[in-house]
Parts: sequence; structure tokens; C-alpha cells
Amino acid sequence: MNAVLIYSGGLDSTVLLHHLHQAGNELAALSVNYGQRHSREIECARQQCARLGIEHRVADLRSLAPLLGANSLTDSAVDVPQGHYTEETMKATVVPNRNMIMLSVATGWAISRKSDCVAYAAHSGDHAIYPDCRREFAEALDAAIRLADWHEVHLYRPFVDWTKADIAKRGEELGVPFAETWSCYQGGEVHCGQCGTCIERREAFYLAEVDDPTPYAMEAPTVDQLVAQFWRLS
Amino acid sequence: MNAVLIYSGGLDSTVLLHHLHQAGNELAALSVNYGQRHSREIECARQQCARLGIEHRVADLRSLAPLLGANSLTDSAVDVPQGHYTEETMKATVVPNRNMIMLSVATGWAISRKSDCVAYAAHSGDHAIYPDCRREFAEALDAAIRLADWHEVHLYRPFVDWTKADIAKRGEELGVPFAETWSCYQGGEVHCGQCGTCIERREAFYLAEVDDPTPYAMEAPTVDQLVAQFWRLS
Repeated sequence: MNAVLIYSGGLDSTVLLHHLHQAGNELAALSVNYGQRHSREIECARQQCARLGIEHRVADLRSLAPLLGANSLTDSAVDVPQGHYTEETMKATVVPNRNMIMLSVATGWAISRKSDCVAYAAHSGDHAIYPDCRREFAEALDAAIRLADWHEVHLYRPFVDWTKADIAKRGEELGVPFAETWSCYQGGEVHCGQCGTCIERREAFYLAEVDDPTPYAMEAPTVDQLVAQFWRLS
Repeated sequence: MNAVLIYSGGLDSTVLLHHLHQAGNELAALSVNYGQRHSREIECARQQCARLGIEHRVADLRSLAPLLGANSLTDSAVDVPQGHYTEETMKATVVPNRNMIMLSVATGWAISRKSDCVAYAAHSGDHAIYPDCRREFAEALDAAIRLADWHEVHLYRPFVDWTKADIAKRGEELGVPFAETWSCYQGGEVHCGQCGTCIERREAFYLAEVDDPTPYAMEAPTVDQLVAQFWRLS
């Protein structure tokens, strides 16, 4: 199979890169610069691809930021919310129609290079606050992508029924260098450890029982601290 | 209705701009700069919007040109084919997945400004050489667009069953200043008169029995010339 992978440089898509590469597929990887604070992930993506000898391109969509409105991923005046993704405040991280825009650009490239599919690392834990992470959205878009050209391209989402912990486990099997992936939505030197993506990343390693080599600005609480907090809140 | 119009500055979308404006809709117009030779159409779009007091934005997607491959609309090394669109050579004007890319960006803007729909001027004469002009493509993409956000946006294609001649006729009723629209795929000072879009433009005015105020570098043949050509080819 010949695939264009939408490749953020985060945990999920890096595991997918190695997963598809190890299975012998021909790959090309596309990162999208939409003006995100965490452009450091693109540098991680570049390094992984160089290591595996995979062509890597960056679609520069920064010029679209004024059209897509203020959100905390692209606008430094809007704070990145902290805490777990289930909270209402995480809506501040929504970039309107981001997935369709990325997938349509990747599809254009896939058509141009006669690839069979556009692969991306959507998984079962992707959130209802991101409507364009829902399965029915991806299925409808897949139908449109298949009709977009005489050379048929389809969407490929091998992780769609996996949890993020399943992905971490698969990454460990593949020997993915987790420390060279980037998840944090803040633009700091190390992962902040407390934004929504950091919390999910930590949780995935914890649930998968996989060692997390990521340095975090905020350490995970110890069991003693959790017990103390429990009694304070009781 | 509040609509984001995909607005090239050509004949069809300029008539749609006036058609929607005259009906009292709230409009915002989006042109896309994908590195086309005929960027002059964007200047036409800007002028029309200024005249009608409609917000106009340009999405600058020139950075995508290397991903989308060589084609005659963006690459000056590839000649723009001449003659009617039915010819195989017109495939050189295909920008892979152009419509999905434009529509996904317009949808992002529509979501961000809480518009009801993305309007575009697809019509019944749009060609099978452009697979993403087919009705089934638009219907599939509409389904995906409706799912892309909690704020539902849909595709609106009021000209989908019209011919280009119907559009020219409607433009005449609305008093559209046709001379201030741009169709030609060449980047010249005046319309070349013989590329695929020029031929269709001329044909639409002819079939609609509407005066064509466009200056063309190549004049339309006279009846005498057509008769002479007929005998030469017989």
C-alpha cells in the first residue's frame, strides 16, 4: 500500500508512522503548520521521518489563521486550558473544520502522487468536543474523498477502534522513541504535564503500563499526594 | 440566510454574488489564491465586493502548489491548452482536489462566523474532466460538512441545475457588470478568447442571447469564416 500519512509528530501519529513503515508500506508524511503554538511537534515529525528515510512535507496554512478565528492553539492571547479534556473549557482548543482542511490537502497530495490512501491516527478516545473527530464525520468525508478524482483515494484509520493506551502499547512493541514525540499544546521547552493532551498522554502510558520517558514541567502526583487530596476534598 | 460565498471573480460566481445579494442574504465572500496564473480574477472579485459593500477575504494557499503537482493553472512551465473543454488536453488544468480544499477552508470560515451555508456556483455544465465537479461528489461532501461542527453548515448550490447560459441570462436581469468579471486561464491583459473557459464564456453569452462586453485577444469567427472552415474540413 502507498499512503500519505497525516503526521503531527505527536504520540498517536508517530506510532502509526512506525506501524505502517514496519508493515512494509510506502509512506509519505504530511505535517500541517496552521500557526499552532506547539510547532515543536513539526520538528519532531521531521526528525522521525529523517530517521526512517520517509519523505516529509509541511503544508503551511498559517495564512488561514485569521479566517478560522481566535482559539488557544493559534492565538497567544487565548490561554490553553488546563485539566482533563472532558471539561467545557477545552472547547477553546477547537480550530473550526481543522480535520477536513488537513484531510483535503493530504488528499490533494495523495492524488498528485497516486497514493492509495490518506492514513491518520484517529482513535476511539477522540473527543466529542471535536465534532470532526466523530466516526460519522470521517465516514462521510471518506465517501467524498473517494469521489474527488478518477484516481481513487480512501481514508485509512487503522486505530479507529483502539484506545490511546492501545497505541502506546503498540508503540512500545515497535520500539518507537517516545521521548522524541510531542503532544503538549503549550509551546514550552518540555511538556507542561497539565494541559488536556499532556494529561491524556500520561494516562495512556499509565494504563498501558508502558514507561513514559517524557520530561514534564509538572511531575505526576505521588500516591501520598493523591491520598492527601482525597481527604481534603472529602 | 447568512452565507459564505466561494467567489472566484469569474462569470458564474459573480452572478451568484449578485443573485444572493439581491435576495437580501447576508454575505461574505472568499477568494482562494492557489497560485493560479489568472490571479487577475481575484482583483475582479475584490472590486465587485467593494461595490456591493460585502466583506471579501482571500485565502492564500500558494504554499500548497508544490504538493499539488504541476498543472497549467499554477505552473508557468505547463501550457494552458486551447480549444473546447471536451478535449483530453484540458486535463492539464486539473488541480488535484481543488474543490474540497476550497470548500473545507470556506466551511472553516463559515463555522467561525456562524454562517448557515457555504454557497458556490457549480452548474450543470461543469465538466466530467473535473471529478470534483460531479453532483455525487458535492452531495457526499455536503454530508461531511454538516457533521464537521456542532454549528451546522451546509453546501448551497442554487445553480446546480442551470446551464452557463442560464447564468448569463440571470446576470443580465440583475445588471451584473460582466466586463468586470474574469474567466480566462491565461494571465494576459485581456481575455485570450480561445482557452477552454473563454470558449465557454463566449458560448454562454451567445446561447443566452446576451451581449458580451468582454474584449478578447482573438475575435469570434464570422459566419463567413465558419463556412470557409466547414468546406476546408469537408
